[in-house]
Amino acid sequence: MSVATVAEAPAAVITWLRDHRQMHLAALCDILAIPSVSMDPAHIADMTTAAQWLADTMQRTGMAHTEIIATAGHPIVYSEWLDAGPTAPTLLIYGHYDVQPADPVEAWHTPPFTPVLRDGNLYARGASDNKGQIMAAVAALEAWLHTMGRLPVNVRVIIEGEEETSSPGLRHVLHANTERLRCDAALMIDSMMLAPQHPLILYGTRGNCYLEITVRGPASDLHSGTFGGTVDNPLNVLTRLLASLQDGETRRVLVPGFYDRVRIVDTTERNLLASLPLDDASIRAMTGAPVLAGEAGYSAIERATIRPTLDIHGIAGGFTGPGKKTVIPSQATAKLSMRLVPFQDPEDIARRITDFLLEQTPPTVTLNVRVLSASHPVLIDHHAPAVQAASQAFEKAFGAPASFMIGGGTLPIAADLQHALSAPLVITGFGLPDDNLHAPDEKLNLSCFFKGSEMIAHYLALLATRHH
Amino acid sequence: MSVATVAEAPAAVITWLRDHRQMHLAALCDILAIPSVSMDPAHIADMTTAAQWLADTMQRTGMAHTEIIATAGHPIVYSEWLDAGPTAPTLLIYGHYDVQPADPVEAWHTPPFTPVLRDGNLYARGASDNKGQIMAAVAALEAWLHTMGRLPVNVRVIIEGEEETSSPGLRHVLHANTERLRCDAALMIDSMMLAPQHPLILYGTRGNCYLEITVRGPASDLHSGTFGGTVDNPLNVLTRLLASLQDGETRRVLVPGFYDRVRIVDTTERNLLASLPLDDASIRAMTGAPVLAGEAGYSAIERATIRPTLDIHGIAGGFTGPGKKTVIPSQATAKLSMRLVPFQDPEDIARRITDFLLEQTPPTVTLNVRVLSASHPVLIDHHAPAVQAASQAFEKAFGAPASFMIGGGTLPIAADLQHALSAPLVITGFGLPDDNLHAPDEKLNLSCFFKGSEMIAHYLALLATRHH
Repeated sequence: MSVATVAEAPAAVITWLRDHRQMHLAALCDILAIPSVSMDPAHIADMTTAAQWLADTMQRTGMAHTEIIATAGHPIVYSEWLDAGPTAPTLLIYGHYDVQPADPVEAWHTPPFTPVLRDGNLYARGASDNKGQIMAAVAALEAWLHTMGRLPVNVRVIIEGEEETSSPGLRHVLHANTERLRCDAALMIDSMMLAPQHPLILYGTRGNCYLEITVRGPASDLHSGTFGGTVDNPLNVLTRLLASLQDGETRRVLVPGFYDRVRIVDTTERNLLASLPLDDASIRAMTGAPVLAGEAGYSAIERATIRPTLDIHGIAGGFTGPGKKTVIPSQATAKLSMRLVPFQDPEDIARRITDFLLEQTPPTVTLNVRVLSASHPVLIDHHAPAVQAASQAFEKAFGAPASFMIGGGTLPIAADLQHALSAPLVITGFGLPDDNLHAPDEKLNLSCFFKGSEMIAHYLALLATRHH
Repeated sequence: MSVATVAEAPAAVITWLRDHRQMHLAALCDILAIPSVSMDPAHIADMTTAAQWLADTMQRTGMAHTEIIATAGHPIVYSEWLDAGPTAPTLLIYGHYDVQPADPVEAWHTPPFTPVLRDGNLYARGASDNKGQIMAAVAALEAWLHTMGRLPVNVRVIIEGEEETSSPGLRHVLHANTERLRCDAALMIDSMMLAPQHPLILYGTRGNCYLEITVRGPASDLHSGTFGGTVDNPLNVLTRLLASLQDGETRRVLVPGFYDRVRIVDTTERNLLASLPLDDASIRAMTGAPVLAGEAGYSAIERATIRPTLDIHGIAGGFTGPGKKTVIPSQATAKLSMRLVPFQDPEDIARRITDFLLEQTPPTVTLNVRVLSASHPVLIDHHAPAVQAASQAFEKAFGAPASFMIGGGTLPIAADLQHALSAPLVITGFGLPDDNLHAPDEKLNLSCFFKGSEMIAHYLALLATRHH
């Protein structure tokens, strides 16, 4: 370390982590065995059990204060240690203990809530999303507190139980406690690396505007022999309306004003994207599509991150079984969503789409547009010291600094965290692209788990130095 | 009957029919109790039972020769009486003994295969479609043979068991026996009246071209957060392709050549349609649509009968359950059909549609078009004596002549009958618009059933006179 002036975690902290890997693995297995499926009412007791287990664990690590915050839904585990001194910065660490349903259970090679170690990976629902990542952070806090008797910065930990159901409880708690939750940076450990040796920090995420569009025509389903030609078929009208949203050549969204607030991305940023191991050929291979396609003038990775999209997810109404039925459905419904980029506003976009469609709707049918969700995009200054420190912590733990990009997906709570806390977000994680999130055989790479703890231990030290 | 020079059935025939109504009703109930559902393999034995029951019944009526013709599917009942003399015309009477499934059985007020009499209607699956109509014809033949010892014309009867499954067996038998089945007119008793006092003869039917269109893109379903913008979404492409088929303003089909062979209908014929009790207001009331719609320049009843249509019946692919899922489906499929008018050719139309869609399909997806069925439209000269005689027979039995129109629906076997027999078809029947065909609580109006027998008895007499 001849040149570096940055701090790192004391050797004792790292040694302690390496000496206690079996213990941390065992703790992770304990919480993975609790089936905390937030969207399934059958698991409501498991949610309480998981929250209590986490609160007990935080207490044992030596955190100063831990509590369970009740919400209208599942409880939030909150823990803090604020004795780093009046000038020390405060870090908020975010994670979630709820998991996706395990369906289809029969597709798993081993039972989803019985963690199994195989080829250096731990298989279980929630291993990567998000219990493994939380427990890496808990281990880092424990290592500091056990070996040094203190943390180098103040730390608040929030672990919610409703991430998979859009975080209604946490959203409420956040906006009601902005002063109490004050912090200088927020670490969201709910993302992934590009590869085992290639850490990644997202300096933003796309938002989402999810709509359900229903066209209603005749009072009941009609036979196309008797009535074909007399009425507008809701499926015919709906496909015309959907087709009007996007240009077939340029794949640009044709709704007036859709691009008005889209951020212009400069060459530096586009070069950054181009330097990632995500060129068109590799993305084509990942998708298995005959040829890639999308908005004219942008590479695939640009279209997946810094440009908005419009995707139809499904169309219901009429008959889709085997064989043929000559039905004119009385109504037809489409689900579609748009990924939005900074500084598009999902409510504004929903209004524009609705107005655009209403204008074209003939009086022969009625149109209804329901907004199923509206999540804001997020943009973070990745030059912020708290963000750069995270990259350096990765370099110490994984041997390589992080790459930076905007995530194509949406973390609905990220915009709320940013808005409520007015602090830079560090969106990162130790998962891998092949972790089978939300799918059978979810797993966590153990090496990533252990190095993840070290990364956080270093990050606490770096953050302390940076801020002084 | 001061002016009329036409014949009618002898009073003895009509009296015998009226004296034996209970017997004919009982016979109808017997065959309605046999659940001859052709598309359900569980009922294969019932199909044989129904065919045998009909053959026995035809024999008892005094028909000269009756046989059961085996097919690759369900058997055909064939019966003939050809002793009317060398110059007498020959009538072929067509019907079918198979019925639609009774599902949903729980929606019936009485069990579908236990005929029940209520308010002058007989309720049972097949009462109107088509057992009641066949048995009306059988009663008429029996009345003539019992009272007069002969029929006034030669008669062939074909009752198939595969009408609800597109008549593959009969189609084969027809084309293999054109000489043996030679006739001067074919009476298809498988249609309906406009109202109890308003008989109807169809001088044609629309054809149908039913397609299944599949767009395939990525190798498997993708997440729209990770991959949205990188690939063409098959649902986006499919809706664009579907929308390209029809003009949103004029509702004209935009496929080149689609209208090339559409018959120009003259003012006389359009006036005939306008005279029917089927104006726009009554059709709007029947459909419950906010406003009627269709090809510019035509009334609703014209659009439902003498003009072609294009209806999308269903779109599969992606997610249509409750809530939201951000899936880019790997493929999407639409079912659609076009009702065709004389002299459009369903195979030609299928080719044109396919070419038109292929031309627009981007290389980012693959397109597949399957023809699920192709039925030719039918046009009959309603001035033909055999057709006019049927109207006069209605006048004698029901007190009113028939109205004439082209049917909007499709009778797939009609084009084959016309083609194989080269004889005018008389497409008519004694059902009513509210008979609940293919639906729960199917029924037959008993008055229509009894008068229907008389109509056929008269028709045989009229046909004999007309031809001499």
